[in-house]
Amino acid sequence: MADLTGPVERSAASRGRAGHDFAAGLRSRPIVIENVQPEIDHGRFPVKRAAGARFEVRATVFKEGHDRLAVVIRHRLAGRSPQSPWNETPMTIENPGLDLWRGEFSLPEIGRYEYTIEAWADEFESWRHEVEKKAEAGQDLTLELLEGRALVARGRDRAAGEALDRVLEAFDSSDDARRRIKLLMSPELRGIMARRQERLCGAVYDHVLEVVADRPRARFAAWYEMFPRSQGREPGKSATFEDCIRRLPEIAAMGFDVVYLVPIHPIGRMHRKGPDNALHAGPDDPGSPYAIGALEGGHTAVHPELGTLEDFRGFVAEAGRHGMEVALDFAIQCAPDHPWVREHPEWFSFRPDGSIKYAENPPKKYQDIVNVNFYGPHREALWAALRDVVLFWAGQGVRTFRVDNPHTKPVPFWEWMIRSVLERYPDAVFLSEAFTRPPMLKMLAKVGFSQSYSYFTWRNDKRELTEYLTELTQTEAREYLLPNFFANTPDILPVFLQTGGRPAFKIRLVLAATLSPLYGIYNGFELCENAPIPGTEEYLHSEKYQYKVWDWDRPGHIKDDIAAVNRIRRENPALQEFANLRFHTAHDDAILFYGKMTADGANKVLVAVSLDPFDAHEADIEIPLHDLGLDGGHVYEVSELLSGERHSWTGARQRIRLTPDNPAAIYRVAS
Amino acid sequence: MADLTGPVERSAASRGRAGHDFAAGLRSRPIVIENVQPEIDHGRFPVKRAAGARFEVRATVFKEGHDRLAVVIRHRLAGRSPQSPWNETPMTIENPGLDLWRGEFSLPEIGRYEYTIEAWADEFESWRHEVEKKAEAGQDLTLELLEGRALVARGRDRAAGEALDRVLEAFDSSDDARRRIKLLMSPELRGIMARRQERLCGAVYDHVLEVVADRPRARFAAWYEMFPRSQGREPGKSATFEDCIRRLPEIAAMGFDVVYLVPIHPIGRMHRKGPDNALHAGPDDPGSPYAIGALEGGHTAVHPELGTLEDFRGFVAEAGRHGMEVALDFAIQCAPDHPWVREHPEWFSFRPDGSIKYAENPPKKYQDIVNVNFYGPHREALWAALRDVVLFWAGQGVRTFRVDNPHTKPVPFWEWMIRSVLERYPDAVFLSEAFTRPPMLKMLAKVGFSQSYSYFTWRNDKRELTEYLTELTQTEAREYLLPNFFANTPDILPVFLQTGGRPAFKIRLVLAATLSPLYGIYNGFELCENAPIPGTEEYLHSEKYQYKVWDWDRPGHIKDDIAAVNRIRRENPALQEFANLRFHTAHDDAILFYGKMTADGANKVLVAVSLDPFDAHEADIEIPLHDLGLDGGHVYEVSELLSGERHSWTGARQRIRLTPDNPAAIYRVAS
Repeated sequence: MADLTGPVERSAASRGRAGHDFAAGLRSRPIVIENVQPEIDHGRFPVKRAAGARFEVRATVFKEGHDRLAVVIRHRLAGRSPQSPWNETPMTIENPGLDLWRGEFSLPEIGRYEYTIEAWADEFESWRHEVEKKAEAGQDLTLELLEGRALVARGRDRAAGEALDRVLEAFDSSDDARRRIKLLMSPELRGIMARRQERLCGAVYDHVLEVVADRPRARFAAWYEMFPRSQGREPGKSATFEDCIRRLPEIAAMGFDVVYLVPIHPIGRMHRKGPDNALHAGPDDPGSPYAIGALEGGHTAVHPELGTLEDFRGFVAEAGRHGMEVALDFAIQCAPDHPWVREHPEWFSFRPDGSIKYAENPPKKYQDIVNVNFYGPHREALWAALRDVVLFWAGQGVRTFRVDNPHTKPVPFWEWMIRSVLERYPDAVFLSEAFTRPPMLKMLAKVGFSQSYSYFTWRNDKRELTEYLTELTQTEAREYLLPNFFANTPDILPVFLQTGGRPAFKIRLVLAATLSPLYGIYNGFELCENAPIPGTEEYLHSEKYQYKVWDWDRPGHIKDDIAAVNRIRRENPALQEFANLRFHTAHDDAILFYGKMTADGANKVLVAVSLDPFDAHEADIEIPLHDLGLDGGHVYEVSELLSGERHSWTGARQRIRLTPDNPAAIYRVAS
Repeated sequence: MADLTGPVERSAASRGRAGHDFAAGLRSRPIVIENVQPEIDHGRFPVKRAAGARFEVRATVFKEGHDRLAVVIRHRLAGRSPQSPWNETPMTIENPGLDLWRGEFSLPEIGRYEYTIEAWADEFESWRHEVEKKAEAGQDLTLELLEGRALVARGRDRAAGEALDRVLEAFDSSDDARRRIKLLMSPELRGIMARRQERLCGAVYDHVLEVVADRPRARFAAWYEMFPRSQGREPGKSATFEDCIRRLPEIAAMGFDVVYLVPIHPIGRMHRKGPDNALHAGPDDPGSPYAIGALEGGHTAVHPELGTLEDFRGFVAEAGRHGMEVALDFAIQCAPDHPWVREHPEWFSFRPDGSIKYAENPPKKYQDIVNVNFYGPHREALWAALRDVVLFWAGQGVRTFRVDNPHTKPVPFWEWMIRSVLERYPDAVFLSEAFTRPPMLKMLAKVGFSQSYSYFTWRNDKRELTEYLTELTQTEAREYLLPNFFANTPDILPVFLQTGGRPAFKIRLVLAATLSPLYGIYNGFELCENAPIPGTEEYLHSEKYQYKVWDWDRPGHIKDDIAAVNRIRRENPALQEFANLRFHTAHDDAILFYGKMTADGANKVLVAVSLDPFDAHEADIEIPLHDLGLDGGHVYEVSELLSGERHSWTGARQRIRLTPDNPAAIYRVAS
């Protein structure tokens, strides 16, 4: 028969179903621990936080009747050998009407932490509470004092200690009720009893949950996506890593943190695509860098036109000297002439006529690409080889990987691969290009991707943006999904940029950079390049299929705006968080008004962005005085960070004017 | 190494965390099954439905890439020996953009059913889909046909069958592509392959979930709470079961389904309370029936003043003849002179001076009641004895138990006790008097109580009622929590009834009876009895502490209103459900307007209730034409069921007038 008052066991609500006999009935515990927040799929997946942060945990904990409860968070750094001991941090009741408890602990370093909840009936506190109420009502306490003494004696029996002996002696040596009350109600005794007492009806939450603490740049960074072969000056010819290095000061000056390169590997020659995705390439056409692999090598080789592996390492080092890191593209597909096709035909699928199966999405055909077969009999070697590609580049100093189309590869592969890489490189970061349906997009984030592409690229009006950002920041998704708001990509030139011109680029820049701590642009954005293949979101004469040379100082560029926005992001910690986003009222459907502040209130930022690239808008906005801790009756100071202008405002309602040339205002509110 | 294409295993999302080696990585499965609805605490607790209903299940199911999936619900009646085989019911995709699947199965009888989800990659359907798209685009299908033949041959290899042999022969005997396509794309072959194919990447959801199908009266019933000793005619004397039997025709005529009796057991004499809860009783005071047990017996005895056990059985039988069933009160506390105190002192707690510990909620003292100790060393015998009390009364023909203060007893006790009773009496029903904080109230519903008291009693204005009912009917709580809306109880005479008089009683009657399929009144409600102890919600001269005689035909009674409302409930199946409640717009803050309809749309009811007992209100309401399937441009017919009036209405906006005398309108909309 289970011992109901014995040591800690699983909580009532979380054990297996009660069986049919008495012992089975007792398996469940009277203290219920439920509704632990945050928690993803009952602990199957970790939540994510920044290393160095405090981590807040809530839980609903209750028991029948009127007993006082003690509730603690148990937590430790996971995966150490020998295993770290559990730490205990007390929780306090936050909402008694809902039995809601709250506590927090810190995440000092990068890594995986485990946490769970423990609770027990606190007999001594229950006794104290009863005595307090009876004393207030002037009731006789003779029996209560004897009961209190018995509790102390039991505490002494559990672990001998002079302090408790002294209390018992003093109690017994006097029968003055007032003295005895003072003795038993002393704060010292309370503290000792909290440690000494048996944990009656002890319950531990059924799940051990995890929180992953990432390095700060995994959660706050501005990305610059670069087509390395287009960074040179000579038309009809590939640029080199040398050329790329020459561009680094300019990119650093714009304030970027990550330089992300599309695939840098040799490009297949079989069925190579020509300009504008033509079915056949001319002899001098370079092909798409996403058709990976040729005679010169595959996923671990560098395209000879760009330089050597050593040149690449030089580029990484130089970026580092500019305070930036390099991200590589991990695209699993192969060109038909990838060395693996020859060396490991068992990793691919073949058709009844012996031909290799190229990629298709009927009726579309991608003859320049073949996919590996993740389910074939030799998959173990294949999966390892793919993992080793990532490890190879990690060995070259790369820690950030943008993964192409992860939603067309098995979820278990990603979970295994990312875990496996993190064991060797705990600071590795993976960005998921999951432009797919929400369940898969979210699942990839759950199984290990640090960041994800999102639908931001297609959210333009006030309702769309408010709804989407509210979902991302105010639902469970915020616990594990960090979007990286790309304003454009080599595959996506959004219609809003096509039609809205330069003001549209400024608008999308400010939105991406202030709504999300992670955002990115693809080169050409700073030049407001927006010529599409008509009726599509494809760039006209895309550099995906041809050599290209850009004038990076072309008139009309918005490099200064980018530099300003990135500087503002760095100077304002509120903009380095995501879940702190709140929307506020602007009395104009074309003006989006929102704000962020740090938990300590030291940094408060408000952003107003016109969503109309064509016309000026003048409207009232409602400053959330209460949220900002401001008194409506007094003057408060506000700096507009793009113009440097300062204002003294009174009251909640303020009038602002935004124009196509200056479509945004970013205010810092003085504390 | 795990076999990825092998037989069914657990799904990716729901397995333990992936480990560090390859095999561990493969443990998780590529098909994700998540977000199964309904599901309470990952299957720890069952959801509840009515026997005879169809049970709807939804789940998010997806896999990487473009494979077609097959998804089924597996379900069976639980707890049979030998175990019932699993049934499979196909699910269909309901929302492709969210990978949301839907299916349903029926719950033909009372009992516990198990269900879970299984999914696999449907290779033949994927092939068919590809062929269809390529055929549309006019592409060559030579290789696709050979691939299709290979699938059929594999199906044949798995289980020999003439049908597939014939297909293969026919295929091979002709090389006419058109004939071959027709052969492989035939609906017959599709059906055979659906059954014959290997379940590739098969995944089963990690949890086996449960749904409990209750008998209809557990979910739809009008309760009449009766103080049996007050049903007679002789002042200063207890009524008998004979007297109670005489009242049954009247109660049945009002349309009640359940007659619930407060405790019928001998009442303790030690520390018996006097009239109006006086500390000391006079020699002729009967005491509170909640101080259970005396020399004459305890929880399995009948108070001699009411009659014998046989008399009680006669009462139950007579109620049955009137189409009603009897509910008993299960109140675990004992009077200090309860036989158990003498026979089983080990079940109680004693104080340092040897006195028994009576109930307290400091500074309040309940000297006429002692509580059992659920945690003592002899708890096994105690718990069994308590369970046996319920079994005893079930043996007398009682199937419905209203449980007093369950939130002051351990949750595991209830889970074990109710399970244990249901094994012997699957049609037993338990109503939880959990007037406590929401987490415990909900937990008691989760662990087995069929019904629960609720906060309805204190929800009076439009906002309160709308918010509370929306929470009850539109959140997860609706899956397991069925409130029983009591308009009053022996402990609660709500202020609204105290001040609002007869119109207030009519208002609360209609609200309780039409908002919730389960509702109840406590005797005296039909007489609009509303004299309080001033400043409290206690009845003045409550029959809890004294003999009482009522004139059940007292002027001003609302028995006809009650009869009308109960008749309308019985005649309108829409009112027999709960989660179908929807609020609609009334352009007056004192008018609550809502509706219910059956899933098939055959019965549609709209209810407008004035919440103001003092003044008449005339206002517009907005008929939800779209929800009702009505065309705004045409005339539709509406019957007001309380008055019998019929209307022909056009358009959504209708004007109504509600008065203190006729504060409600219940419309049936013609289909």
